[in-house]
This record gives sequence, C-alpha cells and structure tokens, in this order.
Amino acid sequence: MLFGSDNWAGAAPEIVDALTRASQGLAPSYGADAFTRSAERQFCEIFEREVTVFFVATGGAANGLALSVLTPSYGMIYCHEESHVQMDECAGPELFTGGAKLLPLRGAGAKIAPEMLQKAIAGYPARPPHGAPAKALSITQATECGTLYSVEELKALCDVAQAHGLSVHMDGARFANALVSLGCTPAEMTWKAGVDVLSFGGTKNGCFAAEAVVFFNPDMVGDFIYKRKRSGHLLSKLRFISAQFEAYFSEGRWLGYASRANAMAARLSEGLAKIDGVKIWYPTQANEVFVEFPAKLETALREAGAVFFPWVTPGDPSGGRMSRLIASFATTESDIDKFLSLANELAKSAR
Amino acid sequence: MLFGSDNWAGAAPEIVDALTRASQGLAPSYGADAFTRSAERQFCEIFEREVTVFFVATGGAANGLALSVLTPSYGMIYCHEESHVQMDECAGPELFTGGAKLLPLRGAGAKIAPEMLQKAIAGYPARPPHGAPAKALSITQATECGTLYSVEELKALCDVAQAHGLSVHMDGARFANALVSLGCTPAEMTWKAGVDVLSFGGTKNGCFAAEAVVFFNPDMVGDFIYKRKRSGHLLSKLRFISAQFEAYFSEGRWLGYASRANAMAARLSEGLAKIDGVKIWYPTQANEVFVEFPAKLETALREAGAVFFPWVTPGDPSGGRMSRLIASFATTESDIDKFLSLANELAKSAR
Amino acid sequence: MLFGSDNWAGAAPEIVDALTRASQGLAPSYGADAFTRSAERQFCEIFEREVTVFFVATGGAANGLALSVLTPSYGMIYCHEESHVQMDECAGPELFTGGAKLLPLRGAGAKIAPEMLQKAIAGYPARPPHGAPAKALSITQATECGTLYSVEELKALCDVAQAHGLSVHMDGARFANALVSLGCTPAEMTWKAGVDVLSFGGTKNGCFAAEAVVFFNPDMVGDFIYKRKRSGHLLSKLRFISAQFEAYFSEGRWLGYASRANAMAARLSEGLAKIDGVKIWYPTQANEVFVEFPAKLETALREAGAVFFPWVTPGDPSGGRMSRLIASFATTESDIDKFLSLANELAKSAR
Amino acid sequence: MLFGSDNWAGAAPEIVDALTRASQGLAPSYGADAFTRSAERQFCEIFEREVTVFFVATGGAANGLALSVLTPSYGMIYCHEESHVQMDECAGPELFTGGAKLLPLRGAGAKIAPEMLQKAIAGYPARPPHGAPAKALSITQATECGTLYSVEELKALCDVAQAHGLSVHMDGARFANALVSLGCTPAEMTWKAGVDVLSFGGTKNGCFAAEAVVFFNPDMVGDFIYKRKRSGHLLSKLRFISAQFEAYFSEGRWLGYASRANAMAARLSEGLAKIDGVKIWYPTQANEVFVEFPAKLETALREAGAVFFPWVTPGDPSGGRMSRLIASFATTESDIDKFLSLANELAKSAR
Repeated sequence: MLFGSDNWAGAAPEIVDALTRASQGLAPSYGADAFTRSAERQFCEIFEREVTVFFVATGGAANGLALSVLTPSYGMIYCHEESHVQMDECAGPELFTGGAKLLPLRGAGAKIAPEMLQKAIAGYPARPPHGAPAKALSITQATECGTLYSVEELKALCDVAQAHGLSVHMDGARFANALVSLGCTPAEMTWKAGVDVLSFGGTKNGCFAAEAVVFFNPDMVGDFIYKRKRSGHLLSKLRFISAQFEAYFSEGRWLGYASRANAMAARLSEGLAKIDGVKIWYPTQANEVFVEFPAKLETALREAGAVFFPWVTPGDPSGGRMSRLIASFATTESDIDKFLSLANELAKSAR
Repeated sequence: MLFGSDNWAGAAPEIVDALTRASQGLAPSYGADAFTRSAERQFCEIFEREVTVFFVATGGAANGLALSVLTPSYGMIYCHEESHVQMDECAGPELFTGGAKLLPLRGAGAKIAPEMLQKAIAGYPARPPHGAPAKALSITQATECGTLYSVEELKALCDVAQAHGLSVHMDGARFANALVSLGCTPAEMTWKAGVDVLSFGGTKNGCFAAEAVVFFNPDMVGDFIYKRKRSGHLLSKLRFISAQFEAYFSEGRWLGYASRANAMAARLSEGLAKIDGVKIWYPTQANEVFVEFPAKLETALREAGAVFFPWVTPGDPSGGRMSRLIASFATTESDIDKFLSLANELAKSAR
Repeated sequence: MLFGSDNWAGAAPEIVDALTRASQGLAPSYGADAFTRSAERQFCEIFEREVTVFFVATGGAANGLALSVLTPSYGMIYCHEESHVQMDECAGPELFTGGAKLLPLRGAGAKIAPEMLQKAIAGYPARPPHGAPAKALSITQATECGTLYSVEELKALCDVAQAHGLSVHMDGARFANALVSLGCTPAEMTWKAGVDVLSFGGTKNGCFAAEAVVFFNPDMVGDFIYKRKRSGHLLSKLRFISAQFEAYFSEGRWLGYASRANAMAARLSEGLAKIDGVKIWYPTQANEVFVEFPAKLETALREAGAVFFPWVTPGDPSGGRMSRLIASFATTESDIDKFLSLANELAKSAR
Repeated sequence: MLFGSDNWAGAAPEIVDALTRASQGLAPSYGADAFTRSAERQFCEIFEREVTVFFVATGGAANGLALSVLTPSYGMIYCHEESHVQMDECAGPELFTGGAKLLPLRGAGAKIAPEMLQKAIAGYPARPPHGAPAKALSITQATECGTLYSVEELKALCDVAQAHGLSVHMDGARFANALVSLGCTPAEMTWKAGVDVLSFGGTKNGCFAAEAVVFFNPDMVGDFIYKRKRSGHLLSKLRFISAQFEAYFSEGRWLGYASRANAMAARLSEGLAKIDGVKIWYPTQANEVFVEFPAKLETALREAGAVFFPWVTPGDPSGGRMSRLIASFATTESDIDKFLSLANELAKSAR
C-alpha cells in the first residue's frame, strides 16, 4: 500500500544483474568505455536516427543541463506552471542556465495548449535588450498529472514553438509510461513531432539512477560536456549508468516495466472510481492516479498504513483535496487489490 | 509631442546646478563624502525614521540589488506579470539574486490583489528542499499601468506577505508621482504599510541618474555593499548621485516635479477621452496615460510627428491596441494642448 | 597494466552485494529511508562525534556544495594551485558558490605551507567592499600529488585559517588512503585538527559512486539541502548511495581497500625507483606514484599496452616529463610485478 | 595634499558645461540619441577604424561586461595578481561571466611577462571537459602600479595570447595617462598590438562617470547589449554619459588632462626621490607614485593632513611599507610643491 512515488521502488532484477556484471574489471573512466558506447548505440537504434546522448544520475540534472544549452543566461523558457522544472527543482534550471526566466503557463491536467503558448509569447514581445528573449519551450510527457499529449498535440505545440524560434525540450522522466500508453514510436513522440532535446528517464522505471539527455540535433549540443562536468554531473565510473541503460533497453524490458506500471495504475484508478464519493481528477493515462477521497476515507486509509501524498499545485481544481497515487514496475496486482479491498471496506464503515 | 517616456526628459535646472557645484574640488570617493552624508540624512527625514540608504545609477540596479538581499539564490519572488522586474530587466533580478525564481501574478491595471497573492502562495506550498521557498513580494508604486495602490491596499497586500514570511520590496521608479497623487506621506506609503525595502527613483522625475535603495529595517541590509560593488554599481565619484538627491529633495522640488508630470498626464487623459473613438484603458492616477486610438488616428498622429509606443503585455485587455503616453516634469501645458488640438483635428478628418 | 586512475576500477564485491540487497523492496525516497539513517550513524561513529552528513554521487558535487555553504558568492577561497577544485572541476566551485574566487597557492607536492597561506592572506587585505573577502581554505588529503599532510601540519594550517576567520574544507577524495597511511583516527585527521567540512570519497576506493559531505559543525550546514537539490544532486533513490557506505564501513572494509591500494603503489614505486634513469618525483605516501621515465622507456611501455597519463600542472618541477600511475583496491601484486618486470626488461633493451 | 586617488577629483569644467547643455530638451532614451551617435563616431576616429562601443558608468561594469563576452561561464581568464579585476572588484568578473575563473599571474610592477603567460597556460593544459579552458587575457594599461607596457611588450603579450586562442582585454581605466606617456596612437596601443576589447576610462581623468567598452572586432560583441541591460548598466538617459565623452575628446582635452596628471606625478616623484630615506618603488610612468616613506615621516605627513593610502598587494616588494599617491587632471603645481616642501621640512625635523 505504498503509492508514494515510483521512486520508492528499488531496481529491477535485470538492472541489478547488469550492474553486478559491470562492476568487474577495469575500464576507462568518464564515459570512454565500452558500456557507454553500447548504450549510446542503443539510443540511436531506439530513436531511429543518430542522436547525441549524455548520461547523468538525476532528472533534475538532465532537465537543468538540457535547458542550459537551449537558452542564454537571460533567456525565457516557457513551461507549465505545474511542471517539475517549475515546481520541484528548487530553482534548479535557474542555476544551470545562469539565471534564465521560467514563464509558467496554465492548462488543465498539466498540459499546455498551443493557443496558450501562442498568447503567452505574444504577451512578452521581443524588445531587445529589455525583455528576456523567448528561447525555449519545456514540456513534460507523461505530464505531472499523469496525462499525455497525443502525437498530434505535440506537433501542434512544437509548431508554435518553432514558429517563434523556440527550441523544444521534453522532460521525459516518465517517457516509457507515455510511450507504451500512446502506442507510438519513440521517434514519433519526439523529434518527428519537433522535440529538440529530451530528458530521458530510467530511474522511475526500474533503474537505480539512470537518466539521459538526448539531442536530436547535434548542433544544439554546444558546450554540454563542460556544463555537465562543472556542475558535478559527470560520473567518473560512468559505465555504471551506461550498464543500467544497456539492460533497460535489452529485450524490450523498459517497455515491459512501464506497461506493468501503467496497467497497475489503470486497475487502481478503475477500482477507486467505483467507490462512492471517490473522484478521479485526471484521466489515468500513465502510471499516476489523482484521487479525491472523502475526508474520512482518506484518514482511515492512512491510519491503515497506506502511503500517498497530497497533490498541491497552483492549478489545483480540487481545492486542496487531491492526492496522488503512483504505481511502478514493482507494483503487483495483489498490491492493488489489497488496497482496493481495504478502501471499499473502509468506505462502507466510514459512511 | 514626445510622449515616449519620462526618461526622454533631460534634467531639471536645479539638479543641473547642484551637479555643477558638486563637480568642484576634491572629495573622498565611494560615498565617504559630505554630499552623501547629507543626502542620507534627507532620506531619514523624509521617511521619518532611521533608514539605511544606498545610491546607484539605474532602477534595474536598485531593483536587482534590493531583491538580492531579500532572497537566497533559490528563493521565490512573487510579482505582477506586467511588472518591470518581470518584463523589462532582461532577467536582471535573476542575475542579481543568483537565479531566484520570479512568479508572475495576474491582476487588472498591473495591481496584485491580496487574494491573488494568497492563492499563489498556497499553490506553491513549502516542501523543503523541492520547491523554491517563498521569500519576497515585489510590488510597484505607481504601477507600470500608471495606477496606484491605496495605502489600505498596500497594507492588505503586505499583511498577506508577512503572514507567509515574505519580505516586501517596492519598486518606486515613479515613487514621487504616486506620493503626490495619493496625498499621503512617504512613511505611510512604505514602512508604515509594511514595505521592507524600497527602490526609490529620481531619474524619471528630473534627475540625470539617481536611484536609491532604502532599507527600513537595518537587519535586512545584509551584504548589500559587497553586492553593489561586485555588480559594478558603486560609483567611484558617488557624490555626483548624492548631490542630485540633495537638490531633488530641497525645497520640496521632487514633489513639484511630480505634481507637474501628473497634472500634465491628467490634462492629456481628459482631453483624449473627449475624442470620439478614443479609449482610456486604465485610470490616469500618476503620469502615464494608456490609450487606445482608432487605427487611422494613431497612424495620422505618428505621421504628424507624435512619439508614443505600443504597450504590449501578457495581461493586455485591448488585444494589442493600446499605446502608452507619458508626461514628465518637463512637459508643459502647451505641449499637451498642441497635441490635443492636433488629435482633435486629425480625428475629424480621419472619419 | 592499467594505472590510469583509481576510478578505472569497478566496485568491490561487498559493495556490489550490498547494492543488490538494497535494490529490493520499496523505501521512502530522497533519503528518508533506513539505509540512509544507518549510514549516517556510521559516519558519527567513525568520526567519534555527531556529524551532519549528506550523500552525493560525485566528488565534484561534494566539493562544490561544501564550499557553497562556507562562502558567500563573492568570497575568496584559498587553495593549492594543483588542487582538484582549481584544476579539474571546470570552474565547478565557481558555479556552486555563485561566483566565488579561488586563490591558487604554490607549494611543493601540492601541499600548502602555513607561511604561504599567511602571506597570501596578507596580500589580499580586507578592504570592504573592494576586495573579495577571505572566507575559506580548501585543502586536499591525500593531496593530488599523492602526498600527505601530517596531523601536525594540518593543525598548523587550520590555525592560520582560523586566525583569519576562514572556514576549512578538506577534499578527501582519497581520505581512506591518507588515513591508513598516517595511522591516525578519522577524528584526528579532521575536526580535531580544525577541519570544518569534509568531502569524503568512497568512489575511488571501491564504491560505484558514493561521496559524502560531512559537517563537523552543524551551524555551518546552512541551506545545504536546498543547494544540493537545486543542483540536481539529491538522488531520488538515495538509499543506493547509503547502502554502498554501509557496506564500505562494515568490518573495516574501507581501510582494507585503501591499505591494499597504498601497498600496491608502494610496491610499484619501490620497483620503479630501482630502474636506471627512472625518477620518482614525490614521496609515495598514498596510492599514487609520480614517475619520470626516460623518454624511450615511456614510449616502449605505452606501446606494450601500459596505460598511465602525463601529469601536467602549473607547479610541475619536471618540465613536463612526469606521469602519474595509480593503484586501487583492485590492483594485485601480480599486476604490479608484471608491469615492473616489463619495465625492467624494456629499460635494458632501450639503452 | 589629497593624493588618495584620481577619483577624488571632481569633473573638469568643460565636462560640466557639456553635461549642462545636454541636460536640456527631450531625447530618445537608452542610447538612441544624437549625443551617443556623435560620441560613437569620435571613438571610431580616435581609434582610426570602425569600432563598436558601449557606454557604462563604472570601470567595474566595463571590465566585467567586456570579459563576459570573451569567455563562457566556465572559462579561464589570465590576469595579473595585482590587477583591478583580481583585487578590487569583489569578484565582479566572476558575477558578470557566470563564474569564470581568474588565474592570477606574478610580475614586477603589475606587468605580465610573455614568458610568464606562456608558462601559466602550459601549466593548465586543455583537457576537456576537466579543466576550465583558457579563454582570455586581461591586461591593464597603465598598470595598477603606474607602470606601462611598451607597444612592443603589448604585442609580445598579445602574440602569446593569440597563439593559444585567448582573446585579449585591456583595462584602460587610465588609458589616457598611458597614451600620453608612451606618445603612441590609441590604435597602436590597442588593436594594432592585438587587443580585442578595451575598457576605456574617462572617470579618473576628468569625467563624472564615463566609461566605454570598445570592441575592435564586431564579431566579439555577441550578446553584450543583453548583458549590459540585465546587469543594470544601461542608463536610461544614456546621453549624459555620451555628452561627457563628446566634451572629453573635443579639442584633445582628454590628452591635456592626462598630461597634466602625469606631469604632476612626475614632479611629485622626482621631488620625493630627493628626500633622504624616501624610496620610489616603481618607475613613475603615468599619474601614480608608489612611495616608501620612513615611518616617522609617513606619520608626520598624515598628521599634517596629507591623504594617501597604503598599497598592499600579493606581490608587494616593500614588505608592507609602500603607499600610493595619485595625481589627477585637477592637481596643480602648487599642490605638489606645497606637499614636497612639507615633506622636506618634516624629513629634516624627523631625523
């Protein structure tokens, strides 16, 4: 009954095995090793093109570093007001970029509509050198509300960005969950839609700590390697991240982990929706469920040992009543069913 | 017919005289001179209390430096989406603070309502170390739309800020214009209402380049002197700024300059409002007039040599049709009347 | 024959086992887990006092974050000109601190003499707000030249620092190697000598990626947690670092790994010293050997597959002829003997 | 007897007159005015080529902004250990550049020898992404010790810089003093010798506050205008700086002011050198005199009301006994003679 976050899960056994194997012997440091070469090739295959990819240990690093090469230090980055870069990284992008400005946009379910982006850009017209010039758009897929942009929606959004000269960054902390839910290819969900740089997350989906910054356009890489190094994000034994990715991609495991997590979230969502007085706020399109429990039921669930956290955001439509429950690759049907059974039982007695 | 900005005006003759006198002889540099001591004393008198005051040459410096001691580098600063710190300083506060996050709020006439502030703070709850912690509120008086907060409104806003542990910064680039319009005292419009730090502007109201950062609470000064120095804002011949302030305050000149500017703006506003099809968007409470001209009239006015600029902001209610006209201490009744006469004439022929 | 760096080694089997065990089950993220609590307690025991400790994945992060709470953004940090913070982190400390100034000092064997520190501080006298005020001293133990400060030398250096109000940071990327070589206690080598904050390294000594910032004075912690988070160095599955430390400290393994590495370096150093024309530049006090090979021999060794890198520094006494060879926990006697045998053989034929 | 600094002087009467004239009437702000156009043309004429020039109010701003476009945020800037950028700007260049690293070099009389630069660069070899890459050289003319680089010395130094891909910045806070002393042209002392960007100072030589950043290569300007704006250094009434430069250059006044200052320093230096026990430490080549007085005499002079400050630097050859005396455009022969007469008298009685 631990639905606090997908980062409460450990690592998948296949990832553990890979790391164990990679732990043996000597290899060049800082990424000049065979594991890293191999993982890089896998990224090219998965995205069906040459990509330039860099490995780091956290999603905050991936986002901050990705944005740092898309904007000068005084640039404007458009993002959703509920996005991780805006709400959860303690002004991290501002540090990595040297003080760029994040412009938070509204939109239901943590999604930015093309019209909203258009309007926001128009409201901050270019007036060199007075305003911070618009430089990038950052979107999240799957979003922080567990919703998805369709491929068409991504295209429409990227089109607006491109028309105004903005580069597009995608925060893919839950990339795999979005991918298997949409049923499209990684290429379709990224560069074919207009995404320039991707923060590709493995940590929430079965890795220890494995994130990648994927550049679809090599011209945008710029001085990424210097910025990664100076911010302390170049691991000396980098092969330990690379080895995780190797195992992650092999035999389609990453898709399997994500499918499991999504399926468990769907099961949870459907089960909860049937309980009287329980409201599911956003469509459960990935591995997160946003629930408003009746107050008594919420208290009873927590007292019974269930773990999940309140979800408070600037765009919260629930008036502070929403909670977030997350499933991971490690969640089992029995975990879900046990919780649903408890919830049903407590709901009855709580009336 | 030059209504582009109050910073198009030169310097008032009395300021010029003072600078000329101050130019003679030797004096200690970096502010250790008698002019600076004297101007500091004047600030204490005007604000009816001991204040700690620092002189700089631009409003951007005053705002950035003031904010830099109110927040750590990862803090959150609440401000209006149309405020100068958000729209017009090219991410300057982000530079001065080391990457703090500005959170833009909506509100008609560039004013923040207490409820809006309350709601915004609630939407970004403290979750150390994940979210950027709320540290400061920055408000502008007179606002960027030429409107005013009443003393009561200021108090209500500062109360919300204080209740959440936020320090309050006031951008007073047009402080004098607001003051004479409200008819209150400098103390009432600042520290008595709850303002902690003030960017006090002289440049737009008759000085060459004279801005001050006024701390009402000496505990908040922190390492301001280091930050001013390192950002290149400690003038070596600082007495030249101090001497401007001395003359500015003497014989109530600053109030006279502002009263003149406000009166001219009012005359302009009233005159334009009478012209068919002309819309005044915000109440003309200081020295700025926000006007929507019929398209033909606007073109005709510009062709006849009038200078004023479009006013485009994220909260623009006019759909991109608004222009801003500004009066200064140097504007004369004849300037206004000539323009109004032209406008009336062109309006007739443009029909 | 791979002596490129101790970070070429993999992870020790006991560390691998620990990580495997820690990979199972769910646990709170961001360090609110039992592994982290336990590792924190071990740090307190090892240092014989309450310490506040934070885990990160790289030494660059540990150094930068440690320094970021010892100095304001405009402070001066004294360090050796050959130190890692000065030479090898791509201006990382400057990023983490918001632009502090590193003042590089000379000294043989990468060691700072107390007199040198004294003189340097005197040369940059406090003249607020003009000069960057002296705030911290950063020293490395074992040094970048594989030498050691004795406990008495550390004390003398810290005394000078304290007398001038400087906090003391120790870069302990090779802390264990220094410790077992000196034969003192962790407490004697740190806080008892006057060290305030320690970057404690595990990565180079058998871990995957495990570094800790250890504060001996809780008052100095400041806003470390915010700075770690915003720089992307708070791992979500932090238990994976904690678990490495748990295994590292258990049964005195860390000392065993370091003893092995040091012994292998000593064996290598002694063996090479016997070869005609080979010069050992610095005393081999930890796990690094600095060697000047005759040019022909150096070429022959590389051609035979040996890996080691040139060591170029501003204080290089060899005129660009020095190489660095490093042993690790994973180096075996046979590795050393095979290399020495080859070197002896090639030296003969190269004559 | 006020020899504290050339920034103790006021403004020259011709500069005052110009500012008074410029204070009248309205003109476009932010540099879009006729004064600015005219001053820009003067810079082109004086330097005998097209230059791109930007006006700011302080030397710290000029230096910091100039360097900010020569280096990325993680670059290395070579400078003298006694230079203003290193010693006197409170880590300002680190702020403007976003955290670049200044590498202080030694050299007698605050001059960098080409060999010293060569050696320093060699000591920090390029090892992407580990070391901060060498990006710029900053030199000062006249130096902080009142000495000069000859045109040949400048060339030799710039040649080393260019050979290693470094851009060259000249801090010309006392540019005019150097120029009239060398008797060369502005072009010869800058771009013809290899200087890329110049901080051109007017403030210390008769202006109120007038500094310029002069780019000899338009490709290096980069995003200077954004950086000037965001750091608060774009004056709204910019014509007030431009007008100072116009007057400064007209009728060769700037050269006259500097000649006067230099002549007075020479007179002072020669007079002091004749006094028993007085030592002149550096050749008096511009407007600064570095003097070691016998202790009793120094005390007696100060007691008699003379003002001059101790000169403490990391490279001080006097063991803390040196003082700096500065002459300005406003210093008269009678000022010097009165002081010399007093010094002679006190020296006799102090025996």
